[in-house]
Formats: sequence, C-alpha cells, structure tokens
Amino acid sequence: MIIVKVGGSLGIDYAALCEDVAALYKEGRKLIVVHGGSAETNRVAAALGHPPKFVTSPSGYTSRFTDRKTLEIFEMVYCGVQNKGLVERLQRLGVNAVGLSGLDGRIFEGKHKDTVRSVEDGKVKVLRGDHTGTVERVNTGLLTLLLDNGYLPVLTPPGSSYEGVAVNVDGDRAAAALAVAFGAEALLLLSNVPGLLRDFPDEASLIAEIPAGEVEAYLEFAHDRMKKKVLGAAEAVRGGVKRVVFGDARVSKPVTAALAGRGTVVR
Amino acid sequence: MIIVKVGGSLGIDYAALCEDVAALYKEGRKLIVVHGGSAETNRVAAALGHPPKFVTSPSGYTSRFTDRKTLEIFEMVYCGVQNKGLVERLQRLGVNAVGLSGLDGRIFEGKHKDTVRSVEDGKVKVLRGDHTGTVERVNTGLLTLLLDNGYLPVLTPPGSSYEGVAVNVDGDRAAAALAVAFGAEALLLLSNVPGLLRDFPDEASLIAEIPAGEVEAYLEFAHDRMKKKVLGAAEAVRGGVKRVVFGDARVSKPVTAALAGRGTVVR
Repeated sequence: MIIVKVGGSLGIDYAALCEDVAALYKEGRKLIVVHGGSAETNRVAAALGHPPKFVTSPSGYTSRFTDRKTLEIFEMVYCGVQNKGLVERLQRLGVNAVGLSGLDGRIFEGKHKDTVRSVEDGKVKVLRGDHTGTVERVNTGLLTLLLDNGYLPVLTPPGSSYEGVAVNVDGDRAAAALAVAFGAEALLLLSNVPGLLRDFPDEASLIAEIPAGEVEAYLEFAHDRMKKKVLGAAEAVRGGVKRVVFGDARVSKPVTAALAGRGTVVR
Repeated sequence: MIIVKVGGSLGIDYAALCEDVAALYKEGRKLIVVHGGSAETNRVAAALGHPPKFVTSPSGYTSRFTDRKTLEIFEMVYCGVQNKGLVERLQRLGVNAVGLSGLDGRIFEGKHKDTVRSVEDGKVKVLRGDHTGTVERVNTGLLTLLLDNGYLPVLTPPGSSYEGVAVNVDGDRAAAALAVAFGAEALLLLSNVPGLLRDFPDEASLIAEIPAGEVEAYLEFAHDRMKKKVLGAAEAVRGGVKRVVFGDARVSKPVTAALAGRGTVVR
C-alpha cells in the first residue's frame, strides 16, 4: 500500500499526478490518494466575504481557525471541487476512483477541539467555536472494502468527532495516521517544494535524507505548512511506516519520482 | 429498498428528514438518500460573481446551463456543503452514512450533452460548452457493496459521462433511474410543496392520487422543477417501481408520511 498525499498549494500539477497514479493503479499497485485544498479555500472564503483566519499556537504551529461558516466553505472546496476534480481526472484515465471525506463512514475519527490557543501580538488568547480535531482513529473497514473491489479511494478532510461532528483535521497528519493503520510501505507527502530545505526557500539546499530516529530534530528547518508534514512523518515512522518521502508535486511522474527517492527521504 | 430524494429548495427541514431516515435505518430498512442543492448553488454562484443561467428547452423544460465554472460551483454546493452536511447530520444520529456523487465509481453514467437548445425571446438558440447529461446507466455495484455492509449511501449529482467527464444530471430523474435499477418498493420525491397541485400554488388543490398509466397526462399541472419530478415518476413507473410519492419535506417525519400516502401517490 502506498499513501499519496498531495497538498492544496499553488503550482501543483494535478494532471501529472493523476497520470502517474493511473499508471501505478493499472500495474496493480494498491494506492490511496489524500488531498488538500488550502489555497483554493482561502480564495473562495475571501470571495464569499469570510476571509480565512489562521492562528499560531504557543508551540509555533499554524492552523486554520474553523468556525461553522469556515467549515462549510472548507467542505465546498475540499469535498466539492477539489475532491470531485481529482475523481473526474482519474475516471477519465480509466481509474475507478471514489472520493470520500473523513466524515464518510467516519474514516478519520478523533476528538473535537472547540477551543484553540492563539498567540496574537505576543499574548495567548483562547478562541472558541473551533471545529478542529486530530485523527486518533482510522476506520479502515470502508477503505478495505473499496480497495478489495478495485476502487481507488480519494480522501480529504474534514474528519468526524466521536459524536459525528465534522472537524477540520490536518491532511498530512491524517495521511500519516492512514499509512500507520494500513502498515503502508510508503507515505509520500507531495507539495510545491522539492522536499525539506535546509535554507528555505533555496531549493538547492534540499535535505536528501533524514534518519528515521531523528525526524523531530529537523523541525527547525520546516516553515509554515512543512511543519505538519515533518510532524506527520515522525508519527508515521514511529507507527512503523518504512519510508516517508517529502516530494515535489510540480514535476512529471511525481509519485514515481518520490518512490525512487527524489525529495527528502525518511527511513 | 426505498429511494428518498430530497430537493434543494428553501424551506426543507433537513433535521426532520434525517431523524426520520435514521429511525427507518435502525429498523433495518434499506434506504438510499439522493439530494439536490439548487437554491444554495444559486446563492453561492451569485456571491462568486458567476450568477446562474437557466435555459428553457423548446419543449418547455427548464434546466441550469452548466459551463465548467458553473460545474465547479455546483460541485462545491452539491458534493461539498450539502452532501457532507447531510452525512454529518446522519452520523450524529448514529447512521453510518457515506456521501457520494454520481462521478464516484461512475454511479450515474450517461451521454455528455455539450450543446443545449434554449428559447430566448421566442427564438431558439444553440448554446455550447454545457456539461449536462441524462442518467442512462446506474452502476449499482458500489452501492450494493455499501448497503450489504451496513452503510447508508447519500448520493448527489453530478454524474459521469461515458468518458468520465462530470455532467450535471437532474436529481429527480437520477433518483428515478436508481429506483428502477434497484427494483425499489418506493421512490419518494420530497420537496417544499405538499405534492402535485391542480392549481399551483394553492396547497389545498393537492392531487392525492395519479393512476400509474396516466402520469404524463398530469404534466400540465407541474410548474418549474415539478416537471422533472413528474417525468421522473413516469420513468420510474414504466421501469417497474410500484409506488412513487411526491411528498412534503417541510413536515416532521417526511419519509414516514410519504410512505403512508401523504402527498401525491402514483401507483
């Protein structure tokens, strides 16, 4: 099993990604695609008069503050146009893709965090009405059913709280939890950079390899959204996933390239 | 099997609908929910600066002109916020719901119509770039797999062309095709009116019963979106569905009420 997570940032070549996924699927490889939709969500939220609000936690992680209205816009983009856009591309390439969110069959389940601590102007504030959570449990039953019957699942946040409430979960960490749950041979975290960079944004400073035991020590090189990827990689490695690669989703054959070791390889 | 189609017009009580669906699901009834999202799509499309365009065919049917941009907004609302909103409501009620579009696993398949004839100011114009289609084939495999494993499918347009292109299909007629494919005992078409009205919009003029052989003769009483429901009902009856009910989705227990014969019953 290969878990392919593709981000939602600008510059990603979805056509190249889907062609590569289709080729591997036709070779009989088992794959699950997980995707984001962050950049487009920001654009749509602004257009709808509800611009995105990001919060930075005291420990330095940035995440979207997801009130109910934001959750609905998030669902429009992630579960609507992004998910069905990928399913359509894959169906056109002869892949029997099925798009699902983590709410469907409660694939991604975890605790609902209603409050979040945010650092603003150097002070810690507590914000309420947040719809976020962390994936604590992956319900693999539905996915196994689909995979065993020749379907290719295309997954996206949100997930479900234990009470069935939609919660925004981080896509990279959800993909890591998925890779652990399936004992995946590889977790590929593809985005619009070549991998983890020692001197961000200098692409020549790519870190080629990270020893499995030292992932968290590399957090210092991670900027913005890359932090969650490094955190996800650490969780995946701890959970027994043999190989995690931070790869480039702007190139042709991005999945094959990452599997061949292009990018930052954690092993 | 009961196919419950709920429209996307204003006034529909989704909480009551989901409570009723949950109660029937827990009794062990096999159900598939199909939903629309028309009113919300119009609102979002206008807010995003791409207001809806409706065309009226020479034979008098009104439908949405679906260019690529409209298709994406359509997916945002139907597959995004509406579909996941229903799945969330059902999950909160203990129903293991799975939301899918007709693209996923190509559940709803048909020919892609790129051009549409539209009557404007009394003249017939031909418009190109349309993404619409009619459901000619229902691929029941994925749904059967889900139903046999205790999941409740929540379906929405769009469907898939034979080439895998997303096409806007009418939800009522898609639900009718689904009812035929499953040999359903009942097809319930629920919306924000009590049923088919002899003198629209006088709700006291409800037509209580339509003989199965005469459905098309009642088209003259159908206004706007009700026309597609009558057409769907005729298709379902011709396809062997025993019972079609046009019911009210604004009341409590709308599914149970329709099953008990409240509304317009075709048999």
